[in-house]
Amino acid sequence: MVDILHRVAIRSSAAEVYAALTTVEGLAGWWTTNTGGEGNGVGGVLRFAFRGGGFDMKVLELDPGKRVLWEVVAGPDEWIGTHVSWDLKQADDYTIVLFKHEGWKEPVEFMHHCSTHWAVFLMSLKSLIETGKGAPDPHDVRIDA
Amino acid sequence: MVDILHRVAIRSSAAEVYAALTTVEGLAGWWTTNTGGEGNGVGGVLRFAFRGGGFDMKVLELDPGKRVLWEVVAGPDEWIGTHVSWDLKQADDYTIVLFKHEGWKEPVEFMHHCSTHWAVFLMSLKSLIETGKGAPDPHDVRIDA
Repeated sequence: MVDILHRVAIRSSAAEVYAALTTVEGLAGWWTTNTGGEGNGVGGVLRFAFRGGGFDMKVLELDPGKRVLWEVVAGPDEWIGTHVSWDLKQADDYTIVLFKHEGWKEPVEFMHHCSTHWAVFLMSLKSLIETGKGAPDPHDVRIDA
Repeated sequence: MVDILHRVAIRSSAAEVYAALTTVEGLAGWWTTNTGGEGNGVGGVLRFAFRGGGFDMKVLELDPGKRVLWEVVAGPDEWIGTHVSWDLKQADDYTIVLFKHEGWKEPVEFMHHCSTHWAVFLMSLKSLIETGKGAPDPHDVRIDA
C-alpha cells in the first residue's frame, strides 16, 4: 500500500474549511463545479464529475471542524476502495489541513499524476477560502498534456 | 519506507527540462534563487538555500534528457540519505516528468508538507519552461502559516 500525503495552511477557521469539504457549494468552489450528492451526513454519497471522468465518495466519518473521511465507491479502478481523509487543526490564525489518499495498491504513473493534482486542488481550496476564488475543474491549472 | 510521487507534463523538449535540473542557472529559476555547486557531473554537489534552511544534494546518476538522481547529503534529519529522482520522457510536444522523493522513514507531518511543496515547485518548473518565469524561493507560493 502506498499513500498520497499533503499539508497546507489556510488562513481561516477550521469551521470554514470543514464547510468547504462537506457542502456541495463548498466542494464545487475548489474541486469541480460539477459536484452533487450529500456530504454532510455519514453514509451520504458525493458525486464529482470532471472533464475526464469522475468519482463517487461515500462519507464514512465526520467530526465537525476536525475530520472528514471518504471512501471511493465509483471511479477509476485504481481509486475504488481507497480512502481520502482530511484532518484539520487550528494554529493561531490558520487551519492546518493534513490530507491523505490512502490504499493505492501500486505506485503507478497515474498515482504520481493524482498526487500532483491533489496538491493543485488543495491550493485551489486555500485560494477559495482566503480570496473567495478557487480554481475548480474545468477552470483548474492544467498539469497534463 | 514511504515516498513522495509527482507527475507533470511540460510543453518542451526533454533537453530543456534536463537543463533546468542540472544547471545552477536552471535550478535557480524554479526552486531557489540561492542555488550553488555543480549539478552537471556525477559526484558533484548542489547546494540549495531557502528562507528556512537548505539541502545539499549529491549527484548520483545523470542520463542526459532522461534521468537525474540526487542523494540528500545535508539538510533536515528527515531528508538525510533520501533520494530524489527525475525521469523524463518525450510524448509529442510534451516532456512527462516523473518525480520521486524516496526513502522517508516515517510519514511524518513534515513529509506531508514537503509533498505539497514539491508539487508547488514542479508547477514553478513548468511555468519557468513554458513561460520563462518560475516562482523560486523566496518568490514561491506560500503553503505554510
